[in-house]
Amino acid sequence: MEENSGVLDRNVIAQVALVVHDIEKTSRAYADFFGIETPTWKLTDAWDQTQAVYRGKPTEARAKLAFMNFGSVVIELIEPDHHPSIWREFLDERGEGFHHIAFKIAGMENITGLMEQKFHMPLVQKGEYTGGRYAYIDSLKDLKVLIELLENDNN
Amino acid sequence: MEENSGVLDRNVIAQVALVVHDIEKTSRAYADFFGIETPTWKLTDAWDQTQAVYRGKPTEARAKLAFMNFGSVVIELIEPDHHPSIWREFLDERGEGFHHIAFKIAGMENITGLMEQKFHMPLVQKGEYTGGRYAYIDSLKDLKVLIELLENDNN
Repeated sequence: MEENSGVLDRNVIAQVALVVHDIEKTSRAYADFFGIETPTWKLTDAWDQTQAVYRGKPTEARAKLAFMNFGSVVIELIEPDHHPSIWREFLDERGEGFHHIAFKIAGMENITGLMEQKFHMPLVQKGEYTGGRYAYIDSLKDLKVLIELLENDNN
Repeated sequence: MEENSGVLDRNVIAQVALVVHDIEKTSRAYADFFGIETPTWKLTDAWDQTQAVYRGKPTEARAKLAFMNFGSVVIELIEPDHHPSIWREFLDERGEGFHHIAFKIAGMENITGLMEQKFHMPLVQKGEYTGGRYAYIDSLKDLKVLIELLENDNN
């Protein structure tokens, strides 16, 4: 948190993330276009590790993720499975393309609480991963983009 | 251009841009949320300066633009007028939200030519501004996002 009255450190846009139907195909397209190595995708953990909750209910949803470094920003590709998730929701309703902007934060519960209470931005999905946890916040009405919060224990 | 076979310097994502219906309202929402000053919007130049072309035809389209610094990345808000443009096209067809990712480049004609010939990514809109020029490239099929190229004469 900065000294100002905002919620997030605005200097840390960590990721710009896209949902796609075929992560291998889109990864190859990025690699060809930018002249980089094709990133290897990684499957998110199973539910016993993620404890994922989507719109108030536990979900077994998993996704293939691939990351590409573009300076200080990472472009993330997400290919969700067919269990309910905010990834699958966007892909079904809006098609392939932009999904969210991610910020690294510390103090997940405080920040999600503040976003909900002060800004009326509800938490739509959350889960654990090795070394940290994430939350998606429905900031679409005011900010026109979905925000992901990332809290890493060793950051 | 880097030594690799890619077209763009992948380290320079300059802007993440959104189209909105009401730039003052969304600017205030960003300012409130991130605890920053509300950015002042600026109207793009008139046609005699922009010489703008959208899908092969001259267009008088203008837009209000507002910029907010988030570290190395700028979030740009765009409120287009009702003349034909790639901004108005996205806003009418997809609604408010993510529009494009912008890269700073040098050598506009070479790069747009290469994108068209090698990658089959057509130029959809271009124009001049004081000190430089822009082009939007339809990279949606392969990269799932629209790309803007920005060439500044003094960079």
